[in-house]
Amino acid sequence: MPDIRKIERENMRQINATHNRELTSWIESANKDSNFPIQNLPFCVFQHATGTPSIGVGIGDQIFNLRMAASAGLFTDEFIEPLSSKSLNLLMAMTVEKRVDLRNRISNLLATGADATMKSTVEKALVYQSDVEFRLPCVIGDYTDFYASLFHATNVGTMFRPNNPLMPNYKHIPIGYHGRSSSVVVSGTNFHRPIGQLTPAEEGGNPTRSACKLMDYELEIGALVAQGNDLGHPIPIDEAEDYLFGLTLMNDWSARDIQKWEYQPLGPFLGKSFATAISPWVITLEALAPFRCPGFERSQDDPPVLDYLTSESNSISGGFDLQLEVHLRSEKMRAENVPALRISQGSFSDLYWTFGQMLTHHSSNGCNLRPGDMLGSGTVSGVARASRGCLLELTWDGDRDNPVPGSQRTPIVLPTGEERKFLADGDELIITGFCENADYIRIGLGSCSGIVLPPVE
Amino acid sequence: MPDIRKIERENMRQINATHNRELTSWIESANKDSNFPIQNLPFCVFQHATGTPSIGVGIGDQIFNLRMAASAGLFTDEFIEPLSSKSLNLLMAMTVEKRVDLRNRISNLLATGADATMKSTVEKALVYQSDVEFRLPCVIGDYTDFYASLFHATNVGTMFRPNNPLMPNYKHIPIGYHGRSSSVVVSGTNFHRPIGQLTPAEEGGNPTRSACKLMDYELEIGALVAQGNDLGHPIPIDEAEDYLFGLTLMNDWSARDIQKWEYQPLGPFLGKSFATAISPWVITLEALAPFRCPGFERSQDDPPVLDYLTSESNSISGGFDLQLEVHLRSEKMRAENVPALRISQGSFSDLYWTFGQMLTHHSSNGCNLRPGDMLGSGTVSGVARASRGCLLELTWDGDRDNPVPGSQRTPIVLPTGEERKFLADGDELIITGFCENADYIRIGLGSCSGIVLPPVE
Repeated sequence: MPDIRKIERENMRQINATHNRELTSWIESANKDSNFPIQNLPFCVFQHATGTPSIGVGIGDQIFNLRMAASAGLFTDEFIEPLSSKSLNLLMAMTVEKRVDLRNRISNLLATGADATMKSTVEKALVYQSDVEFRLPCVIGDYTDFYASLFHATNVGTMFRPNNPLMPNYKHIPIGYHGRSSSVVVSGTNFHRPIGQLTPAEEGGNPTRSACKLMDYELEIGALVAQGNDLGHPIPIDEAEDYLFGLTLMNDWSARDIQKWEYQPLGPFLGKSFATAISPWVITLEALAPFRCPGFERSQDDPPVLDYLTSESNSISGGFDLQLEVHLRSEKMRAENVPALRISQGSFSDLYWTFGQMLTHHSSNGCNLRPGDMLGSGTVSGVARASRGCLLELTWDGDRDNPVPGSQRTPIVLPTGEERKFLADGDELIITGFCENADYIRIGLGSCSGIVLPPVE
Repeated sequence: MPDIRKIERENMRQINATHNRELTSWIESANKDSNFPIQNLPFCVFQHATGTPSIGVGIGDQIFNLRMAASAGLFTDEFIEPLSSKSLNLLMAMTVEKRVDLRNRISNLLATGADATMKSTVEKALVYQSDVEFRLPCVIGDYTDFYASLFHATNVGTMFRPNNPLMPNYKHIPIGYHGRSSSVVVSGTNFHRPIGQLTPAEEGGNPTRSACKLMDYELEIGALVAQGNDLGHPIPIDEAEDYLFGLTLMNDWSARDIQKWEYQPLGPFLGKSFATAISPWVITLEALAPFRCPGFERSQDDPPVLDYLTSESNSISGGFDLQLEVHLRSEKMRAENVPALRISQGSFSDLYWTFGQMLTHHSSNGCNLRPGDMLGSGTVSGVARASRGCLLELTWDGDRDNPVPGSQRTPIVLPTGEERKFLADGDELIITGFCENADYIRIGLGSCSGIVLPPVE
């Protein structure tokens, strides 16, 4: 007997009237080449200089202030408390059904042809995105970083262990580790280059203490948890998607040299915990429904995945067809008004593990996840050189199929003639992402940016 | 020029009237062989079946309800909000000066000879510890687990790498990793044996999925953070102690076989995140002032510690002279009313790194710590076999000075004749701790206990 309620839930996530590509908004900026058309409706938390942090939805170049809208009576009572909150956590904790109700209602309010009275109330709750500051969209209780790109894991493994690049567990376990939630910051937050212990110059020698010399970024996607599970209650793979609220762009800033000296035997620590940036926009799984795609196509040589990480729907539509780009702009480029240089392009569909598998594995020992917890995908790297998701890989001459021990680094040359093997002080790194296909409108993820400031002694 | 304010702060932590060993309480149970004499005053958060979670202070066999006391006007205004909270975080965020003021005030209220009117108000706010349920004492934003016992690291290293037990970084860096804060539970919380992926039987084979077969505990101390630091602002070693609020007993439950298969290359994950228990009582640094001791005495062969982790006060009094005990009681022992068996005894003064060094290192890259964040010490193991802090070490026949590859496991024999190499379902593990010396009264840390329940499929 099929589980009727489950099928209903799944159907609600499917493409409905809110996804209709013919649908337009009475907010004109949403209708032409916008990252935020009415089919997107990404959530954020924003603040005017003097105001209260408020939950909003992006539409064109504006934000619809949902706190104001709720207090003006535009939503039913059950949404008043979640929408009046200073973070998305209460909204995230609601059921899929309720969130779909909310999406439908917001879509109706913003659609061309909306009721005139409603429209005038909505107008009072609109603010330009350029006039606000963004906050972290939610309280991130715990942040876990995965390592889900086979190509990234293979590249990095090849550099350090040419003959044995992939650990024996890689194709069985979505490898992950606990990250630091306190240092997760919103896009636009600059940070000082960290200082740390670096590997001794000679074996058996003493380490030096120095500013990081190998500053890198990591192109990632963060998945934010919706409803949580209780401690001791694993989430089956068939239900995993009900526990995911939405996606955000993420830059897992990395101090490669600090990490190298510290990470044995317990994993990365201070090489990561000085800053991890996410975009202010959370794109819901509902908005992304038209861009679901199959999980990674495993080859015949790949080992079978254990049952608890396998489901039909995960295989068919566990992935996201999501394009990512990384741009770099040095201080000199900004001073000379040179636009940022695109240094890589990748696709999120290249990941070996789906977020559903990561979430199910994470809870499989009984670990509890809470609304707002974040799962990082790990660096998104593809097969092509141009799709490598960090400088460690991008400026590496190595080739995973023909590993060359001792490969050199070839710097990226910027339009100003400057060269980069790793990031310099003043460099700005900008990650953008979008979903687009021939049959459907473009859904943007916004951007995630930050500047490396000089170290502070 | 000496920093007068800093010297004043340090003096306040020194032994003052609240530590006087002649001081007694009008609450009789606090005066004789109690873990909670008036010199202790540990904080907790407790709840009656139907009541609000409240902050309290342990005194003898009772709890002084500080929320009730604050609303009855026993404390100055600045303490009303922190003491009316459902967690200790606001209190933790206060300055050392304020916390010392509060300690002095509580001590005066509970001391023999307290003002009669005050005393009758206090009496109304007393409740027996046996009548309440305990909650986690604070919201733990981030939990970090260190690896500060040289003896533990050497034992574990010897088992897996007999010729190279200690990593080259060990004596330079207080090694730590991010833990999972959602699964930190209060003493008395039982948990189901986790299920996970276990190492393939033969190299290159597929892993199995099974209930953990090597369930272990780890004897640790948790340090809870007081005031926090801002992102990008490291905490100097000289000021580290101002950022520590107090200590708690901790059991870092460990699934050794799950950890073994998953932990390369990013560290422990599901082998740890099913449950980490702490005692409900937080013993403040003020209460522990008479039991400070020098940090680990390094030998001439040990490398110098980098400057940022070195200070005179850390060397002189960075440690805690704190005794720890571990008891085990099987289901059969409980059924037959056999008391728990003491399986080990250790001393916290055996740690290679102090909490001050761990905290300073943690923030040295700019990582921000927040009030209520927890630093675990790592397994506390001493030189002697009987002071090994987990079953992995206790039932191991190996010897770190004469490593024998392939050493056997010798089970612990319980009074019922049962044998244990690792924990069985139904086993209860109880950690206790106390400070005691010839010149001073005993300060107890309470206990941290939990039972391993059978796995749930």
